[in-house]
Amino acid sequence: MTTPATTPATTPATTPATTLPGHVTIREVSLRDGLQNEKPVSLQAKLDLLAAIAATGVTEVEATAFVSPSKVPAMADAPQMAEALSGFPDIAFSALVASPNGARRAIAAGLTDVQFVVAATDEFSRANVGRSSDEAVAQIAEITAIAHDADTTVEVIIATSWDCPFEGPTPTGRVVDIAAAARDAGADRLAIADTIGTTTPRRVTTLIDALRPVIADLPLGAHFHNTRGTGLASAYAAVGAGVTRLDASIGGLGGCPFAPGATGNIATEDLAYLLRDSGIDTGIDLDAAIHAADVARQVVGHDLPSSLLRAGDRLRK
Amino acid sequence: MTTPATTPATTPATTPATTLPGHVTIREVSLRDGLQNEKPVSLQAKLDLLAAIAATGVTEVEATAFVSPSKVPAMADAPQMAEALSGFPDIAFSALVASPNGARRAIAAGLTDVQFVVAATDEFSRANVGRSSDEAVAQIAEITAIAHDADTTVEVIIATSWDCPFEGPTPTGRVVDIAAAARDAGADRLAIADTIGTTTPRRVTTLIDALRPVIADLPLGAHFHNTRGTGLASAYAAVGAGVTRLDASIGGLGGCPFAPGATGNIATEDLAYLLRDSGIDTGIDLDAAIHAADVARQVVGHDLPSSLLRAGDRLRK
Repeated sequence: MTTPATTPATTPATTPATTLPGHVTIREVSLRDGLQNEKPVSLQAKLDLLAAIAATGVTEVEATAFVSPSKVPAMADAPQMAEALSGFPDIAFSALVASPNGARRAIAAGLTDVQFVVAATDEFSRANVGRSSDEAVAQIAEITAIAHDADTTVEVIIATSWDCPFEGPTPTGRVVDIAAAARDAGADRLAIADTIGTTTPRRVTTLIDALRPVIADLPLGAHFHNTRGTGLASAYAAVGAGVTRLDASIGGLGGCPFAPGATGNIATEDLAYLLRDSGIDTGIDLDAAIHAADVARQVVGHDLPSSLLRAGDRLRK
Repeated sequence: MTTPATTPATTPATTPATTLPGHVTIREVSLRDGLQNEKPVSLQAKLDLLAAIAATGVTEVEATAFVSPSKVPAMADAPQMAEALSGFPDIAFSALVASPNGARRAIAAGLTDVQFVVAATDEFSRANVGRSSDEAVAQIAEITAIAHDADTTVEVIIATSWDCPFEGPTPTGRVVDIAAAARDAGADRLAIADTIGTTTPRRVTTLIDALRPVIADLPLGAHFHNTRGTGLASAYAAVGAGVTRLDASIGGLGGCPFAPGATGNIATEDLAYLLRDSGIDTGIDLDAAIHAADVARQVVGHDLPSSLLRAGDRLRK
């Protein structure tokens, strides 16, 4: 056996302190991204989960999706769900849409904020919505016009921003081009999504740095799955690169019906824990979030990947 | 419902690129930290796992622990294990010790590198080795003298570097003081250990920054558990702060018998994946690492927390 090297650790020439923001907004997506891949649960179960989520202090919730009920049966109750949201006046709700028609339905149901998902890769886009990526991008202007006519804001979420389950790595330039198109079409916000949970911190930073000159002051969010255990590391890298809007899901609930091998979103409570201990406020009460994760576990009837749900907050015995 | 704020994302005044090292050494600890908390497995099973680990290209392996067989029965075969290591001449092996007597036993068995664990907090130290933290620190000089007389190197691992399961948060100054004492006592390397898996990236950077002036060019490693899902984020933060030596365990095997609620070490394959995609070489073959994780799962007879074992490498269908 050989003796381990005892050469000095390489100290980077410069290790500058990254400036972290004081506040990060966590958008809770368990009711949509979390539940869409589960066996449909009752409206009442969703509202029970929403009540637990509201108690965490979260300010933004993706409540449902106005998409094809036959393709995503778990979201078939979107209009009924939308009707119930008025019971939670302190939360800004949004819904996911996949077409102009979906945007119209969301607005008719009372939503004033929609997310339109555009995949950066053709094969994923065709599997997801039956259109090429370019065809989906071309719909941004129409959806934005429909939404703005109804005083509704539009966030464009770029799916498969780093990797596609069918096409492999996504060219950074393609994501930048979509961001530019979304900006030109009048989108109010952008988000980059690691749909299949493959990205890592350095790639996150690289993409955000490439997007900055294009998106200017358009708010940028990020959406990570923890499929390869790197979701929190990626989220923290995004925050270090100036992103102050992150999606997360109570309990780590979630997946993607068209993304083979994808597992849950990053867990809201795990993310809130990491950010709290980094001196970043999220407004989320950890105890309430862990309780909500327990409610989510009961709603879906199986264990969830949340770490805090299992191990608890370090500051609480 | 209210409309979400569309104020621009806060862009930090400066977002300087952190200089990342080109290479990080992963020390494989599954055979010690990974197995110590499991029902004892046969020597042959350990050697099967070691053979699978050796095939990954890993260069450093913590092979066993010379500690009380009654307290840690899974390590009772340390002398037999040590004897078998000569079959793997390309790997630098080390063993954990908890006392001068353990160091003597390790050296007598042929080890030329030992890790001496010192807990930064009294209650953990007493639970772990029956001595106060100061009493354990006082042993560093004796162990270093014993080791150096036998051309053996000593790494001092500071357990509970961030939090103690009994005492709560560990004062940074206590860790810095132990590091200074270890340096003065002639230790060849230092490592900081998140024994109960509570730390987060910002706290990692804070501690490393506090240690730098004290440890000067003494090599510094870091050891993380993924109990709260933050292990990889913390590891990446350590690398960003100049640490080029990280412990990890194939499959994420591992825990700590005296740390309530602790779960596995960060998984070698998950860490190697994150580092590869960050442009950092580890010398580890991911396919071989995933295979080794599968061997580890068979050896212990239960599922393991590894993400790559479940989801696979993004670059491989």
